[in-house]
Amino acid sequence: MPSTTVPHAIVIGSGSGGLTAAVGLARMGRSAVMVEAAHIGGDCTNVGCIPSKSLLHHSKRGILTGPEVLAKVRERRTALRHHEEDEFGNLPGVDFRRGRARIAGPGRVEITSPDGQVDVLESPNIVIASGSSPRRLVIPDLPAELMWTNENLFEIAEPPRHLAIVGGGPIGVEMATAFTRLGSTVSLVEFAPQILPNMVPAAARILHESLVAMGVRIEVGARASSFEARTGALSLEPATGGPSTAVFSGVDAVLVAAGRIPNSDDLGLETVGVLTDDGGRIIIDDRGRTNISGIYACGDVTDRGGTTHAAGAWGRRILRSMIAGRLPQPDVPPMPGAVFGDPEAAWVGHQPVDPPPDVRRIHVDVATIDRAYTDEVTSGAVIIDVRRLSGRIMGATIVGPRAGELIGTVSLAMKTGVPFHKWYGVVWPYPTYSDGLSKAVDLYVAEALPSLHTDALRWLTGRVRSVIGRGS
Amino acid sequence: MPSTTVPHAIVIGSGSGGLTAAVGLARMGRSAVMVEAAHIGGDCTNVGCIPSKSLLHHSKRGILTGPEVLAKVRERRTALRHHEEDEFGNLPGVDFRRGRARIAGPGRVEITSPDGQVDVLESPNIVIASGSSPRRLVIPDLPAELMWTNENLFEIAEPPRHLAIVGGGPIGVEMATAFTRLGSTVSLVEFAPQILPNMVPAAARILHESLVAMGVRIEVGARASSFEARTGALSLEPATGGPSTAVFSGVDAVLVAAGRIPNSDDLGLETVGVLTDDGGRIIIDDRGRTNISGIYACGDVTDRGGTTHAAGAWGRRILRSMIAGRLPQPDVPPMPGAVFGDPEAAWVGHQPVDPPPDVRRIHVDVATIDRAYTDEVTSGAVIIDVRRLSGRIMGATIVGPRAGELIGTVSLAMKTGVPFHKWYGVVWPYPTYSDGLSKAVDLYVAEALPSLHTDALRWLTGRVRSVIGRGS
Repeated sequence: MPSTTVPHAIVIGSGSGGLTAAVGLARMGRSAVMVEAAHIGGDCTNVGCIPSKSLLHHSKRGILTGPEVLAKVRERRTALRHHEEDEFGNLPGVDFRRGRARIAGPGRVEITSPDGQVDVLESPNIVIASGSSPRRLVIPDLPAELMWTNENLFEIAEPPRHLAIVGGGPIGVEMATAFTRLGSTVSLVEFAPQILPNMVPAAARILHESLVAMGVRIEVGARASSFEARTGALSLEPATGGPSTAVFSGVDAVLVAAGRIPNSDDLGLETVGVLTDDGGRIIIDDRGRTNISGIYACGDVTDRGGTTHAAGAWGRRILRSMIAGRLPQPDVPPMPGAVFGDPEAAWVGHQPVDPPPDVRRIHVDVATIDRAYTDEVTSGAVIIDVRRLSGRIMGATIVGPRAGELIGTVSLAMKTGVPFHKWYGVVWPYPTYSDGLSKAVDLYVAEALPSLHTDALRWLTGRVRSVIGRGS
Repeated sequence: MPSTTVPHAIVIGSGSGGLTAAVGLARMGRSAVMVEAAHIGGDCTNVGCIPSKSLLHHSKRGILTGPEVLAKVRERRTALRHHEEDEFGNLPGVDFRRGRARIAGPGRVEITSPDGQVDVLESPNIVIASGSSPRRLVIPDLPAELMWTNENLFEIAEPPRHLAIVGGGPIGVEMATAFTRLGSTVSLVEFAPQILPNMVPAAARILHESLVAMGVRIEVGARASSFEARTGALSLEPATGGPSTAVFSGVDAVLVAAGRIPNSDDLGLETVGVLTDDGGRIIIDDRGRTNISGIYACGDVTDRGGTTHAAGAWGRRILRSMIAGRLPQPDVPPMPGAVFGDPEAAWVGHQPVDPPPDVRRIHVDVATIDRAYTDEVTSGAVIIDVRRLSGRIMGATIVGPRAGELIGTVSLAMKTGVPFHKWYGVVWPYPTYSDGLSKAVDLYVAEALPSLHTDALRWLTGRVRSVIGRGS
């Protein structure tokens, strides 16, 4: 066992990435110091995935009143928080410190505990997993108590009458869904020309229409420009500037979900020269290393993307780098994403707005799936980009029931290098939404092999399937 | 185009298997005769998957009354039936005949239409896709009008007060779920020692407990022995025989879902010598061929299993055999199955009750998945059998939300030969039920590599994941 006075690593932050690194070290008999300024579990447990998915679940059930749902979500969140504080705050091998961490020089971290006490610890390895914070906007005349973010949203006692959401990313879409279900009027403004700006337009459009059908008012290509407290009027102006073009009236709360700011400001990065990009995100390589030897970073604070699952994956890579740095690392796997609206949507890989000529985009309408018929689902899409000659899957977006699970199948195939044409002949249980993947394969194979000698063989590549809509 | 008087094949039955073969031939410019004694689409559209899944959907929503749900299910089923009759009854290249088909000699099929007219057609190929029928039981003193099967179940106007279900297979489990939701008292008796007798016991137990928690009374290892019409008492006796041990009282309907009988009796198989097994199932080889040249069979009528998706897959194989019989056929892919109860369950491959020594059985409790926490799901399992040295997946059973989609991922990996250890490092979106697969991989890899040199590497195989329960 290493000396307890010099830990193998000091881990800043206890979200998914930090926990993975710290707990992993401990399990290997290496001691770690893990520093947390707020709650163990990071945003995910406390102000992110857990309360938001719990809110989506309870708001959908329609059994509890709005205030009861909000109390229930808080109760579940707090129970998990206590469980994690107990479990991860007292792990053998992990010296858990509550406080703010700041790099004070090479291999040195200064920890300021809540009572003001300052400790300086040394370690050959520092892992920065300090996460991100909601981007704050200035909306003239909007009272501070009416401006919410994910950090205080889950503390409210009852749903607002009219919730304006600034930002149409995953948080905005999920909360628009949940608060509409709870009976709030919801209006949403997105700066980009579409909600979910990084999503393939055809998929984002389905979610847009679904939100509108639920009763959400959506304005895209616009931003909140001012607020009038007396009438609750949130004025919008075009993203390109100019006079106000629309107003959300009677607004009694504004949820700002307009991007994230990396928590990199107060880390003392400048004391050792850790590089960040223009947005303040720490630049890392495929092994999770910063430009400074012995300093690693993962998750939202980096330029390689956030989300709980991605931060965890990067935490693992860092662990491997710290322990077995000379061994080769596998390629960085594709990192999927998901938004748990109604319908659910998920994606993996990269899909440009228009695919390049050597990439074929396959589009299956989820409404043509038999299970959608029995479930009365009338919209959704499976959109898969496949390189024409190799069958390599470049990316996929799925909108519809269970999209978050279906994308996992694509993620597995991408990671393990199974080309799309090899999916042909896989049997999926009937009737499931996996039929969307099956139809996509049939379309791909049928059109990817135009040079086969006979009609017979060409047919065998799978046209019946898309005609009869079931069987394999 | 071939002569219209000698079709390329005569296809007996228009369910998933028959449709796939007939429509496929037509698309390749080969004419086919398709004969159907009842409705196009077979059991699936008319008395199987479509109405049962529609019933499960509408009974779950809890918006309509019982009679309204039953009417709605019928309406949706009938609409699809009409759509399919229109589409597949008038396909160019498919000569659709309504009537009963019977093999009259080598290459000759006799078709008796509903008005009694008899035609004899000739073709070098005959595809038997005549499906199956519910096994009829003799229950002394049970009036015929109280004995239901899937063939008349979807015609009832209102839910019974007390529905007794004989048979705890997929149909029994799904209908117990649906009618309990509609307010019926439901009692179920299964002959085998467990419901879903072919399922891994640990998985079947979860469904058993879930049904009991819903209020379903279940008796296993027993059979219905007699009925008393005056009191609606259905007596049970032990499967091993002996005096009655239990009674379901006040029963006003008995659904018999105790297995299927292949529709092979009246096909004239004896005229040409097509072999069947002891249960009357037509024996086929990997190409869908019977022992008689030019005669093929698929689906429920064969010894290679039913279900809509499997029949479709076999229909494709037959098509390939008929058109390109000299080309190699790919191996028969694993055929998954699913039961859409609450929770859902699905399986693929073969899992004996106890795995052999060289197979490791990995078991993940779905309740430990974070999404289960937010959704308040407290039971479920991911059970995967993996060959120790090769990592080959032998079979899997999943019980829990979205199991029908998750099993597709396993089906893909089995078909394409991705060993289980190669799943390690795949990133799944958080929080989804795919985390169950991810946890299973972590467990497998961690324990499959005990001989690695260092604790470090051994840890890197994935223990944190099952500790912190999220991230990748």
